[in-house]
Amino acid sequence: MSKLRLVFVVSNSTAITSETLGHSLMAQFPNQDFKWTTFPYVDSREKVDNALEQIMEMSADEEGQPIVFSTLADPGVRAHLIKADVLVFDPFEAFINPISDALGVKPSSKPGLSHRISNQRAYESRIEAVNYTLIHDDGAAIRHIEQAELIILGVSRTAKTPTSIYLAMHYSIRCANYPLTPDDMEGELLPRFLKPHRDKLVGLTTSARRLSQIRQERRPDSKYANLQQCKFELQMAENIYIQERIPFVDTESRSIEEISATIIQKMQIERK
Amino acid sequence: MSKLRLVFVVSNSTAITSETLGHSLMAQFPNQDFKWTTFPYVDSREKVDNALEQIMEMSADEEGQPIVFSTLADPGVRAHLIKADVLVFDPFEAFINPISDALGVKPSSKPGLSHRISNQRAYESRIEAVNYTLIHDDGAAIRHIEQAELIILGVSRTAKTPTSIYLAMHYSIRCANYPLTPDDMEGELLPRFLKPHRDKLVGLTTSARRLSQIRQERRPDSKYANLQQCKFELQMAENIYIQERIPFVDTESRSIEEISATIIQKMQIERK
Repeated sequence: MSKLRLVFVVSNSTAITSETLGHSLMAQFPNQDFKWTTFPYVDSREKVDNALEQIMEMSADEEGQPIVFSTLADPGVRAHLIKADVLVFDPFEAFINPISDALGVKPSSKPGLSHRISNQRAYESRIEAVNYTLIHDDGAAIRHIEQAELIILGVSRTAKTPTSIYLAMHYSIRCANYPLTPDDMEGELLPRFLKPHRDKLVGLTTSARRLSQIRQERRPDSKYANLQQCKFELQMAENIYIQERIPFVDTESRSIEEISATIIQKMQIERK
Repeated sequence: MSKLRLVFVVSNSTAITSETLGHSLMAQFPNQDFKWTTFPYVDSREKVDNALEQIMEMSADEEGQPIVFSTLADPGVRAHLIKADVLVFDPFEAFINPISDALGVKPSSKPGLSHRISNQRAYESRIEAVNYTLIHDDGAAIRHIEQAELIILGVSRTAKTPTSIYLAMHYSIRCANYPLTPDDMEGELLPRFLKPHRDKLVGLTTSARRLSQIRQERRPDSKYANLQQCKFELQMAENIYIQERIPFVDTESRSIEEISATIIQKMQIERK
């Protein structure tokens, strides 16, 4: 493993975009370890100078110029960072002028427009989706299940809850989830109240080995965590998915983001 | 308002990075409306051709070249998109070679490394943070409150729950939240069991007008939603924050992302 490299993120707002972009690019160097430092809400030359001072101090013993990912919308503030002795990667610098030319519209150059509430209704529908999803987590409430846009099925510990919440938070999807228990699955039948909602159902599955491992942490040496039991439950669940033609997603070694993106694609849900 | 413009996103993976980047850049043109179409998991030339076919069909009546944000890690796949008759903005194309030069390491060129589970422990700590946060939502469980890394306070409907969940999901923070009720706040005292955790406390507040509006939707014409009542509760809460030196954040017209980023900055929490 090579030496830990320092990487910096400078943003005029939340730093969500610049961190996401930076991590995506640096993931292309999987054998290199990075230490990230983020400076959010850097929206003036003075704040750039403050950030630079810390960056220079932290990088004093490093070789080469410090690597900085930035998203600075104000051209003056951005130029101030770029002219410093750091290596800046800023998509505003790279892309905003050609986009402006293509659109025939001047950019506003105001910082932090992207993660702002631009549309009160969109914001409320997102909060509503999160609330709906929390109330309908883990089969907790089957009332108003008809208001769900998506219903996630799966045996215990297949990532139903985090996936549901992610879908609600990021895509404003009202997402219920319902646990398939050994009792429920007797005779390998879909719980009857779910049948009218078949087009909204999506199943999760994983490998028995992985499931057993996860359950083991929760209840060590229980029947619940037993490899055979896990195999049996997953098999019953998959049989139901196949019989009922419910699309399903393997969550093993997939992140919540990947599971969510795959569900949206499979279910052809419009990204809001 | 000018004509709706089509914008496309082509990604070899979840499309989270490219959508985030595209939205950030296009937010610089707030008077222009966009219609977004995303093609995730485009990881071969054939899939690029499929996406291009749909892009061309959808753009048939548009002026100028279609605008495409892409994050394609494979140089061959990326080149295939770039040579088509579309205007491509791809940060891999713009940045990966200079980054590689600075690091002195070749990029892997493998798609989708960023939202993948690269570190099983980091993944588990995230899921654990989400579970902890759900269990400790809205004062539901004060057991194990000492395990919280952050405790969010606020009167009803100040965005405690979505903020807590966002912090757990994105920053792996075990985040409890506790509602300040009029009863609780009598005498403007902090609930006693929270006192030992003062350094983890952060308060939320908003304007009485906005709070009344939000509560009105939940319980129309109730005392709960009454403007005077909202003013009274917010005043009591802020008095507690000030007396107890609890940092607090105004959530009015701030998105969940902005509230979260501000909390992290104020509380000097390390971004994991």
